[in-house]
Amino acid sequence: MTTAPGAGVLEPVLVIGTGLVGTSVGLALGAVGIQVHLRDLDQAALAVAASRGAGQVGGLGAGGRTEAGDPVRLVVVAVPPGRVPEVAAEALTTHPDAVVTDVGSVKSAPLRALSVLVGGDDLARYVGGHPMSGSEQSGPWAASAELFSGRAWAVTPHRRSAPAAVAAVEALARACGSAVVTMSPDEHDLAVARVSHLPHLLSVLTAAQLVTAPPDHLSLSGQGLRDVTRVAAGDPGLWTQIIAANAPALRTLLRGVRDDLDVLLAGLDAPAGDGIGAILTRAVDGTRRIPAKHGGPARAEAVVVVSVPDRPGELARLFADAGQSGVNVEDLRIDHDPGRPVGLVELVVQTDAADRLVEALAARGWSAHR
Amino acid sequence: MTTAPGAGVLEPVLVIGTGLVGTSVGLALGAVGIQVHLRDLDQAALAVAASRGAGQVGGLGAGGRTEAGDPVRLVVVAVPPGRVPEVAAEALTTHPDAVVTDVGSVKSAPLRALSVLVGGDDLARYVGGHPMSGSEQSGPWAASAELFSGRAWAVTPHRRSAPAAVAAVEALARACGSAVVTMSPDEHDLAVARVSHLPHLLSVLTAAQLVTAPPDHLSLSGQGLRDVTRVAAGDPGLWTQIIAANAPALRTLLRGVRDDLDVLLAGLDAPAGDGIGAILTRAVDGTRRIPAKHGGPARAEAVVVVSVPDRPGELARLFADAGQSGVNVEDLRIDHDPGRPVGLVELVVQTDAADRLVEALAARGWSAHR
Repeated sequence: MTTAPGAGVLEPVLVIGTGLVGTSVGLALGAVGIQVHLRDLDQAALAVAASRGAGQVGGLGAGGRTEAGDPVRLVVVAVPPGRVPEVAAEALTTHPDAVVTDVGSVKSAPLRALSVLVGGDDLARYVGGHPMSGSEQSGPWAASAELFSGRAWAVTPHRRSAPAAVAAVEALARACGSAVVTMSPDEHDLAVARVSHLPHLLSVLTAAQLVTAPPDHLSLSGQGLRDVTRVAAGDPGLWTQIIAANAPALRTLLRGVRDDLDVLLAGLDAPAGDGIGAILTRAVDGTRRIPAKHGGPARAEAVVVVSVPDRPGELARLFADAGQSGVNVEDLRIDHDPGRPVGLVELVVQTDAADRLVEALAARGWSAHR
Repeated sequence: MTTAPGAGVLEPVLVIGTGLVGTSVGLALGAVGIQVHLRDLDQAALAVAASRGAGQVGGLGAGGRTEAGDPVRLVVVAVPPGRVPEVAAEALTTHPDAVVTDVGSVKSAPLRALSVLVGGDDLARYVGGHPMSGSEQSGPWAASAELFSGRAWAVTPHRRSAPAAVAAVEALARACGSAVVTMSPDEHDLAVARVSHLPHLLSVLTAAQLVTAPPDHLSLSGQGLRDVTRVAAGDPGLWTQIIAANAPALRTLLRGVRDDLDVLLAGLDAPAGDGIGAILTRAVDGTRRIPAKHGGPARAEAVVVVSVPDRPGELARLFADAGQSGVNVEDLRIDHDPGRPVGLVELVVQTDAADRLVEALAARGWSAHR
């Protein structure tokens, strides 16, 4: 058991709401030795979270102090999006020495609602947060101490935030294993509109067109379709709330998309024009702006394709052989195949290592090519 | 060296056009012992293809016969899309005993153009094809005998196709390692409009919006964005041709998307309505219609997430440990992480095996959760 740097400033922590994210925060903090208390109106969820080791139920007396007399220093509000302002306001009042944060996926509108409920001194102790955990599951049973490991955690100070409060929320994110990304609530909402909510909606528009397809047509589905539509499988109820909460930012982006869509439609009628080509070229440019792994500059990467029998142990053998070549695999995918018990594994490696990997795999009997 | 079932009916084969697909066909047929001749106006590409073993240059005398006096039995037209009708017509005339096919990604318009150029008897020997090879590279250097292995190969008979010609093109697809999917040219074009061309355009619309994003905003990019925009990196020149050739089918689908987009925009202004929720729900349904791996019925799958240090050999160790648990990994991805030298590997397995895999990995020291 190790203690994260700066984690001592957080303890004891109160987590309000023991769903997937709240319970995972409790588990992650517990794993680095931080004392966590849990609260939830849903007694069943609370009991599950406690039984899984996410923290102790209650244990806070008058003035929100522990039995040892310590005041709560950090409250994590992990309730459904619509209840965040009310619960955060109550936490700021009940725990006058605590920093209060939340984990909602939209930050600006909840902050405005909270600022109506509490005074400026209390508001200084609130700093919003948003772990980009990326799970599509829910509830305390799905929680994990590893949920945030290696993911971005947006921390969103506002103009009245106390610097010590910002530091505490950043320490929370790091204690949970995340990389801190700090930006204002408005910037956060614009950012997630573009990199998360809009891609979700365009994935949805693609998937929605599949419902009326003859089943035969879908037999030509490839990895491209699966990639584009994967996120569209997410929970409609949750996404309806997220979209409504971030409507202003999404409206601007969706109108831009509609303008581009009209250019595409006009281009279908006038193939001699260059409207379609211009958008296709802009899109290639857009894909190059997505940060590379580890947030570093984009590196030249190459794909090595390997045929792999679809049975246990073959992937292990492949990666053992790839590992012995000394080449680091940056990314990979298994391509689905229609009709044969063989998989195609695409290994993404640095360009200057690709030929070496192909040779090494071929020497060990694999059918591999760039 | 093995001979594919039925491959004997193809030999000798003439491949016209030695780019990525034509050269790969030559290599794939050569790998199963089928005699291939190559032709290309581009002498440099032809020399590369021959040097890589895709077939012999020329070697056909008067009447398109080999030196042994055998007539060509199958011509594969692998030229740029716009030249397919003209080259196929010439091949039908020059090789009166041969079946002629092509590998273009749109089938209906080229067939109409060909039917103007040749008579009904000759047209009976033409059957279009479309290998779903999914590579974004080009040229004979990028060719591989494995390019089609495990992929779908659409075979598109028309009303006048001779049954023996259809059988020959199906045998070609199987000899190249593909799974045959037979449908009419019109059905093919409608199918790829929906499962390939439309997803490409919506991926493009998503990626095009990234160009105007502040770089800070992109630091919140996650796997969802990368999945949705991956195909948008494809060559704009090639895709402009594909879109133009399949304009009628795409126009209908894009108009449907614009109608749905207008419902989304209206929903942003009227959050009490259920327009957005209805489309989100339809999209979930759409994702469930995509055939599962191996074309079989969808199986209940679960995701196991494992933290893996980002250095050579760790993936090998992970898959060795996963393999020893006896659980078959159906699919996987490596999630990119912003700011930490650790990767998250998501292993997709059958639901009833997920807990067993988590236990087995945890017992070997991995940090794994569902």
